[in-house]
Amino acid sequence: MNTTEPIRIAIVGHGNLGRGVEAAMKHNHDMRLTGIYTRRPPARLKPLNPETPVFAIEELDQHTDRIDVLILCGGSRQDLPQQGPKYATLFNTVDSFDTHARIPDYFSAVDAAAKPNAKTALISAGWDPGMFSINRVLGEALLPNGETHTFWGDGLSQGHSDALRRVPGVAGAVQYTRPVPAAVEQARSGLRLPLTTREKHRRDCFVVLDEGADPEIVRQAIVTMEHYFVDYDTIVNFISAEELARDHSAMPHGGFVIRSGHTSENITQTIEYSLKLESNPEFTSSILVAYARAVHRLHAMGQYGAKTVFDVPPGLLSVKSAEQLRADYL
Amino acid sequence: MNTTEPIRIAIVGHGNLGRGVEAAMKHNHDMRLTGIYTRRPPARLKPLNPETPVFAIEELDQHTDRIDVLILCGGSRQDLPQQGPKYATLFNTVDSFDTHARIPDYFSAVDAAAKPNAKTALISAGWDPGMFSINRVLGEALLPNGETHTFWGDGLSQGHSDALRRVPGVAGAVQYTRPVPAAVEQARSGLRLPLTTREKHRRDCFVVLDEGADPEIVRQAIVTMEHYFVDYDTIVNFISAEELARDHSAMPHGGFVIRSGHTSENITQTIEYSLKLESNPEFTSSILVAYARAVHRLHAMGQYGAKTVFDVPPGLLSVKSAEQLRADYL
Repeated sequence: MNTTEPIRIAIVGHGNLGRGVEAAMKHNHDMRLTGIYTRRPPARLKPLNPETPVFAIEELDQHTDRIDVLILCGGSRQDLPQQGPKYATLFNTVDSFDTHARIPDYFSAVDAAAKPNAKTALISAGWDPGMFSINRVLGEALLPNGETHTFWGDGLSQGHSDALRRVPGVAGAVQYTRPVPAAVEQARSGLRLPLTTREKHRRDCFVVLDEGADPEIVRQAIVTMEHYFVDYDTIVNFISAEELARDHSAMPHGGFVIRSGHTSENITQTIEYSLKLESNPEFTSSILVAYARAVHRLHAMGQYGAKTVFDVPPGLLSVKSAEQLRADYL
Repeated sequence: MNTTEPIRIAIVGHGNLGRGVEAAMKHNHDMRLTGIYTRRPPARLKPLNPETPVFAIEELDQHTDRIDVLILCGGSRQDLPQQGPKYATLFNTVDSFDTHARIPDYFSAVDAAAKPNAKTALISAGWDPGMFSINRVLGEALLPNGETHTFWGDGLSQGHSDALRRVPGVAGAVQYTRPVPAAVEQARSGLRLPLTTREKHRRDCFVVLDEGADPEIVRQAIVTMEHYFVDYDTIVNFISAEELARDHSAMPHGGFVIRSGHTSENITQTIEYSLKLESNPEFTSSILVAYARAVHRLHAMGQYGAKTVFDVPPGLLSVKSAEQLRADYL
């Protein structure tokens, strides 16, 4: 697997994820960042490394010969449904599409674009979907007579924070998802009792009110919000704009996948995969970069079309050769 | 991936691992145990399911048409070095070869046997080597700027228990490996200070003395034993034969693989994979069975030769189809 030429990586989009990919380049010496492609005026974008060229996104079509893998760093709602299939006709791609319910459709669209063009496109990489998904599948395969629980947090949820900001009277807000310790302990214990949504997670909100807004009205609007808060024990804390900026600008996250099962009567076995992340986007980006390496290799092996993390042998993510992995890591 | 015909599994060897594979069959409905092959007189072996046929190991050569995957349940010292290459010429195989230093040679020998005969042979499956190996490789690939620590225990170490039993004056013994909590906490913290062998694990021995043996001489022989105990804080407890039988016949084990690293300055990310096993052999067997499914599929895809867990896409271990995994587990 050792090639002397570095893998040429390019980024579409320069939000938190794109910047995370840039930061990860420093630690992946078999790769080189050949460009950042943006919808903004390129001159206004400041890359971490000032030598990284910045291009308008429209130039991508002409750059097929300078990119081995294109990492799509846009969002799942607006960007990827259009960009994923579009760029998989021209490039090997990696993305973090995470709208769970729409993954089968997205997979089909990307597959239909990539396969006839002999490209390899890995969708839905990251930690959930991604590493957590792998652990859900492996947990069930290794302990078929068992139960899997996924817990998220402690962590800042972008989607729920956005939902808070849409409530009338809210000037700014963040939301932290926290697993309920008793539920985590139960999952670990092998008891295999069902856990409700409310029993598994708590939602803590930190809200800055608009001037003159009534806190009780805002609180009611939040705790009764369907899909987001009504099924949880939700705590609403009102804070000042200064406190929000000072105490809540980091993006920690994490969680657990716990599989507990029985291999024979009265024999309990427990597998747990857990993440404790000080920066959710930087970790997701690091995963995208490792999968870019795997995609480059899958493509070289002639494995075209859409792929998911379930299709990728773990060894392909490593910079090391198969021989070295067998000798030193097995 | 859904086939109507069950995968035909056979077992060589009927110790703890072989019995664990038998027990696992109940939970894997896409498989059928077609035979147990033994060096003992077949009539003396009592299978869990009395309908399972038992054969002399010499009959294996004539049974190539009734076995899809042969699971080698023998030991790494005596059995596998000979059985692995031998049976990979005739069958798809899975084994749990775990003599770390000899894995590259063993891989080569099995590969040379399997490849020209169009067979697929997965070596060194289990939890370490196996699941822990995957997590060591993924941890480093996702957080290249970091440090990995593997801890084992609390658990009964077969190799160290055997070493105790070879000490003159010892009538019976077991040894438990225990991670030192302070070292585990340090690995989780992201501090990335080196940890010595002694700092990471403690060894607790429970020893039954031969009549008339001098406990102090036995203790000294144990705690100074090279390769096994001299580099550890070792506690020797003397107990009665009754206590040994009553309190120390289970085979619990487990451990952690902790990868802690930095994605940018001051941003610490921690990945932890942990196992808590009430039966070490039954869990290892469950892993062998899941990999037997993957081997059957790899073989159907024309991927011949020796393989390790690094070469196997996670989705191939699941009984579910790729479509279902994408829809429900991603």
